[in-house]
Amino acid sequence: MAVSDTVRLGAGVVIHHRDLVNLYGCEIGDETRIGTFVEIQEGARVGARCKISSHSFLCTGVTIEDEVFIGHGVMFTNDLWPRATNDDGSLQGAQDWCLVPTLVCRHASIGSNATILAGVVVGESAVVGAGAVVTADVAPGQVVAGVPARPVTDRRRSLAQAGAMRPPAERLR
Amino acid sequence: MAVSDTVRLGAGVVIHHRDLVNLYGCEIGDETRIGTFVEIQEGARVGARCKISSHSFLCTGVTIEDEVFIGHGVMFTNDLWPRATNDDGSLQGAQDWCLVPTLVCRHASIGSNATILAGVVVGESAVVGAGAVVTADVAPGQVVAGVPARPVTDRRRSLAQAGAMRPPAERLR
Amino acid sequence: MAVSDTVRLGAGVVIHHRDLVNLYGCEIGDETRIGTFVEIQEGARVGARCKISSHSFLCTGVTIEDEVFIGHGVMFTNDLWPRATNDDGSLQGAQDWCLVPTLVCRHASIGSNATILAGVVVGESAVVGAGAVVTADVAPGQVVAGVPARPVTDRRRSLAQAGAMRPPAERLR
Repeated sequence: MAVSDTVRLGAGVVIHHRDLVNLYGCEIGDETRIGTFVEIQEGARVGARCKISSHSFLCTGVTIEDEVFIGHGVMFTNDLWPRATNDDGSLQGAQDWCLVPTLVCRHASIGSNATILAGVVVGESAVVGAGAVVTADVAPGQVVAGVPARPVTDRRRSLAQAGAMRPPAERLR
Repeated sequence: MAVSDTVRLGAGVVIHHRDLVNLYGCEIGDETRIGTFVEIQEGARVGARCKISSHSFLCTGVTIEDEVFIGHGVMFTNDLWPRATNDDGSLQGAQDWCLVPTLVCRHASIGSNATILAGVVVGESAVVGAGAVVTADVAPGQVVAGVPARPVTDRRRSLAQAGAMRPPAERLR
Repeated sequence: MAVSDTVRLGAGVVIHHRDLVNLYGCEIGDETRIGTFVEIQEGARVGARCKISSHSFLCTGVTIEDEVFIGHGVMFTNDLWPRATNDDGSLQGAQDWCLVPTLVCRHASIGSNATILAGVVVGESAVVGAGAVVTADVAPGQVVAGVPARPVTDRRRSLAQAGAMRPPAERLR
């Protein structure tokens, strides 16, 4: 069992495998669904009716508003220059680094394997493409993709590139 | 135990830690090996003699043919515009999104941390580089890398860049 | 319990959830901390006072010196052309591929979701940005980011891009 007693779970939260997640000190809103192999740290807040997909990591300092989709393997960060030790070789403690908060606004979607640098705001209903590295704020409704993530101007072209128009069987074989 | 009774396992399948995977409703071919922290969803099909490495996610709609290598932390997707909720704020159900299938053909290799967008076909014996984001079909035998993934023309240069020709001890120290 | 008896653990090693990691045949130095959903393979060596964050994978052939920070979802590799099977369709065994070692030197930091190609050396106190794909050696003290990873020349600009100068509340809302 790795859902700590310190977690504040809303009503109707769905956690498929409670023994295959690591949640502690966080707050999860009503009807949110949480996949396997997910870690959510102390102080992170997730809103209502969100979907947090498998293999994702939400750290201290992250706020997820309502109705947000977090894909699989998404990594949030809260320290722009992480180190294991100080210059004198001693282990870093709470006083040795600066927590930088991150905000994902209502109804946004973060694609799988995306990386979110500490300090950004992903605006309401914005979409972050799969595999993107987000290094700057994303405006409300904006679609971004790539490394670093940049606005995608033509949604239809993006869909065509992804091959969504034809079923696989008609193509290669 | 997180290998559901609904999984159809072939003969000689190797799952190193059955309590550290999440497999349900999927089909796994003979002699395929599955690493830890792997999730394979309902309806996904994996062929024979494949290797599915740790931390990877294979979703509904994914078909992996025989003899395929899937690296560590590889994320497949099946929805080009994922959302947690509909525009009216209600939770998305099965009728609210479009499943886009993906196919990885025989003997292909997908590098670690690669992201595969829904709808693509990775051709027979093709190679996807580690960390690539695949947004379009990969031709049989082709080697692709980068974000978005593009063909790599010079394999030897690629190997040299990766530093494979010299052991580390001869270089920096 | 997935910390094998074959692991050589130093004094004061912290493993938050011993039942949610997969460590076997590896060596972990004194006071190193290991997160959840981490796999460390046979023969990998991790130094003292390191931090190995959740969801990361360290394979055979990887050497991590003292005081190194490994972020979340970091994937190391040890084979430049991985395949599940040989050309005759038989499963690959130990004699069918070439192990390429990787070295991360003292006090370096590897950002979350980074991918490290087999054979590179990350120099002392170097920093690899989150989401980077490292395909070549990183010099001591150097900061690299992107796909493939390239040197970052202006640290302050990088910080500003990441939005670290202003708290989120002052920006979008």
